[in-house]
Amino acid sequence: MTDLMRFREHDAPAVRDPIFVEGLPGVGNVGKLAAQHLVDALDAKLWFDIFSHDFPPQVTIETDGTVRLVRNQVWVVPGGGEHDLVILTGDYQPLSSEGQFALVEGVLDRLDPLGCKRMYTLGGYGLGTTVETPDVLGAATDRALVEQLEGHGVKFQEDEPSGGIVGASGLFLGLGMERGMGGACLMGETSGYMVDPAAARAVLHVLGEVIGRTIDMTDLENKAAEIDRITQQLHEAEVAAREPGDLHYIG
Amino acid sequence: MTDLMRFREHDAPAVRDPIFVEGLPGVGNVGKLAAQHLVDALDAKLWFDIFSHDFPPQVTIETDGTVRLVRNQVWVVPGGGEHDLVILTGDYQPLSSEGQFALVEGVLDRLDPLGCKRMYTLGGYGLGTTVETPDVLGAATDRALVEQLEGHGVKFQEDEPSGGIVGASGLFLGLGMERGMGGACLMGETSGYMVDPAAARAVLHVLGEVIGRTIDMTDLENKAAEIDRITQQLHEAEVAAREPGDLHYIG
Amino acid sequence: MTDLMRFREHDAPAVRDPIFVEGLPGVGNVGKLAAQHLVDALDAKLWFDIFSHDFPPQVTIETDGTVRLVRNQVWVVPGGGEHDLVILTGDYQPLSSEGQFALVEGVLDRLDPLGCKRMYTLGGYGLGTTVETPDVLGAATDRALVEQLEGHGVKFQEDEPSGGIVGASGLFLGLGMERGMGGACLMGETSGYMVDPAAARAVLHVLGEVIGRTIDMTDLENKAAEIDRITQQLHEAEVAAREPGDLHYIG
Amino acid sequence: MTDLMRFREHDAPAVRDPIFVEGLPGVGNVGKLAAQHLVDALDAKLWFDIFSHDFPPQVTIETDGTVRLVRNQVWVVPGGGEHDLVILTGDYQPLSSEGQFALVEGVLDRLDPLGCKRMYTLGGYGLGTTVETPDVLGAATDRALVEQLEGHGVKFQEDEPSGGIVGASGLFLGLGMERGMGGACLMGETSGYMVDPAAARAVLHVLGEVIGRTIDMTDLENKAAEIDRITQQLHEAEVAAREPGDLHYIG
Repeated sequence: MTDLMRFREHDAPAVRDPIFVEGLPGVGNVGKLAAQHLVDALDAKLWFDIFSHDFPPQVTIETDGTVRLVRNQVWVVPGGGEHDLVILTGDYQPLSSEGQFALVEGVLDRLDPLGCKRMYTLGGYGLGTTVETPDVLGAATDRALVEQLEGHGVKFQEDEPSGGIVGASGLFLGLGMERGMGGACLMGETSGYMVDPAAARAVLHVLGEVIGRTIDMTDLENKAAEIDRITQQLHEAEVAAREPGDLHYIG
Repeated sequence: MTDLMRFREHDAPAVRDPIFVEGLPGVGNVGKLAAQHLVDALDAKLWFDIFSHDFPPQVTIETDGTVRLVRNQVWVVPGGGEHDLVILTGDYQPLSSEGQFALVEGVLDRLDPLGCKRMYTLGGYGLGTTVETPDVLGAATDRALVEQLEGHGVKFQEDEPSGGIVGASGLFLGLGMERGMGGACLMGETSGYMVDPAAARAVLHVLGEVIGRTIDMTDLENKAAEIDRITQQLHEAEVAAREPGDLHYIG
Repeated sequence: MTDLMRFREHDAPAVRDPIFVEGLPGVGNVGKLAAQHLVDALDAKLWFDIFSHDFPPQVTIETDGTVRLVRNQVWVVPGGGEHDLVILTGDYQPLSSEGQFALVEGVLDRLDPLGCKRMYTLGGYGLGTTVETPDVLGAATDRALVEQLEGHGVKFQEDEPSGGIVGASGLFLGLGMERGMGGACLMGETSGYMVDPAAARAVLHVLGEVIGRTIDMTDLENKAAEIDRITQQLHEAEVAAREPGDLHYIG
Repeated sequence: MTDLMRFREHDAPAVRDPIFVEGLPGVGNVGKLAAQHLVDALDAKLWFDIFSHDFPPQVTIETDGTVRLVRNQVWVVPGGGEHDLVILTGDYQPLSSEGQFALVEGVLDRLDPLGCKRMYTLGGYGLGTTVETPDVLGAATDRALVEQLEGHGVKFQEDEPSGGIVGASGLFLGLGMERGMGGACLMGETSGYMVDPAAARAVLHVLGEVIGRTIDMTDLENKAAEIDRITQQLHEAEVAAREPGDLHYIG
């Protein structure tokens, strides 16, 4: 436990010049949903487990009643003609700012020798209101990439997000720049009220175009339809709960 | 003070292949009540005091006016034909995630050489409502143990607890697994509103069956009756405080 | 800045077998008021300044407009026939539990070689209601001292304070015991709503008897009278603010 | 990442006996606005970037859509007949007390060899109410400087700020004193409700007199006029929102 992050390596990857993709829990869990979907849809191989006492001291419970220590995981997708991918996802972001730096620097230390020069970090952009068709907002390490992403429909808005990008999605860009890696953060618009597979789908749609990969979205679309159904039921239950005589009390 | 946890050893135990039991403060103090009851009922011997600046900087006051630095304690119960037991209890769980890891790793370091392969961590499962006859929920490190515990009436529910198991009861399982130790967390259903000896009794009932030990529950049953009496008095006082004319205000 | 606490020594003291007295900010600032009064009334000499990044990053402003880095201070009072005294007071208690341990261990490291075997820690016991004549509650490291202090009118109540003694006043006793030093915490009853020189006076009255020193209380008594005067004015202003017609609104 | 603060040096400055000026975010952002204005108005050269995991793990987003890791910066202004200046500004103050000490000691370590003997730290003094013409409050390391600053209209009030000066503006004075550097904190009165260029202007007016430099205030005055305009619009909108019939509801 001398280091804040403990990397446990599984099979070393045979990847070269990979594109790095990060998606950890955050607003609407958009980044995590998107990255986890990539891992599943592209049949990624596990490269690293990452444990830390800067994650909560916790086990999660699987559907079969067994437990599993919370962790982050780094996955590898061989290229098949396209760029190899390295994908980071996990149960939690580090709890402290020091842990955030340790996670990001630790992953960058392992990406550097592979010749990684491009990264995309995925997240949600909370609007606080329902979104019909989520746009994707962007922020990038250089102007050339800003312009390239605008060509894929990504929006760049002055002063948005006004607080900057906090957490791993921002820090990978900021610390990657110091090592000569360029990249962008892709943020799917979301209400922020619940997990949002539709926003994850919007983000992956852009990412697929940019990295030249076809990503089967069926599973995410099913999840989004399920969330839509639940939202609709909640809405109807709320309407039903309003008796006519009470209508003027609703503010 | 170079280490976060300071272990002060008393008489070294003559135990082999012990079963480890953990019960520290938490929801309804179920785990601590159960572990402390085990220590008292089985006449356990003190093995370690554990001090830490990751416990609150505090002394407790005994009934005779003297003070005692807050601590955790590891106790030993010789087998007498059954498995030896090692029991951890204490005044507080560590304050930080780092302290949680240091406590758990420190105790595992001392269990390892004894050949410990089985652990039960004890806790409460807060329902937020009164419980007539508390069930015991479980989570385990492997399917075989899940099935064995189901045979003792332990319930395993998909997605419960939905937040996983936070704190020492989860971490002992998660970090023990990394060392090849298996085990389960036994959680007694409790309202979570006050200390709950009835939930502790339910947990110990299962534990006694599983480890093949008879545990005298008289003291816990007396405490549970006392809590029932207080709850009943509070309830009657509340009812008495409602004047007839106010009844329609009670929501 | 390798150590959490930085001790800057002034003139080394010529003291032997001193009694240690601690009074840092806390409930009603009773401990700090009492210890600072001791320093002033007994014309103590400064032995150590203690600086730490576990105190707030702050300067205080003196009445002449100049600033002073927040600190703790250790003072020495030569015996003059009685026991020498070493007194700790200061602007803040350490912010973290780790800092509390570092402060207490650091001071004990410097008391040990002097042959210090007895300590009194001073504080307030918050009642949440106005106190006419404050009693002094106690907690001690051994039964003999409990009985001796009862002879000086100190009250020892089962389960009071129910949360134990948190902070330096508790930790000096708890960590001192580990080194064979005995002592007691003296807690003056106070409302806890404002600084309370009357409670400090009650605590020092007991301390003076126990250590066999006459302490001139004039200054504390003047401060207590001033607080009484302010409290009375506040009370009168509150009464005056109630117009007759509003009386039934006052809850 | 062995050190809490990472200093990345750009061109080393050719400065001697500089005056140090600090302005980091705080009440009304007065200090940061003032220091940043100095950097712009005096065409300062960048000397150091300072990164830390004790700043938030965050990138800011520039107006062109590109990102930038949060940081502090140290700037140099050659004298041109007057004292050279070294100016510290940045996106954040360190998050922890330990980080505050590390930042201040790290900057002082680099000021010491230059022969720096004088510093001014800039900040806001929150009144909680609108200020027509902000005064400048002061606190200094010695009486001679208090008296000199009174000659420039700086107010020194007993017990103000009552909580002392917290953060870098206080700590630079307190830790600078330990190294034989003298200086003062200049605090512009501000409501504290929004960024306050008028208070920054008041602070710089005094600073300019004291260090014998003419500072073009046009930009700050434009910003102050803009804030005045926004405040006026908010006030009018609030008044307009009150319909006559609702007036008795306004509390």
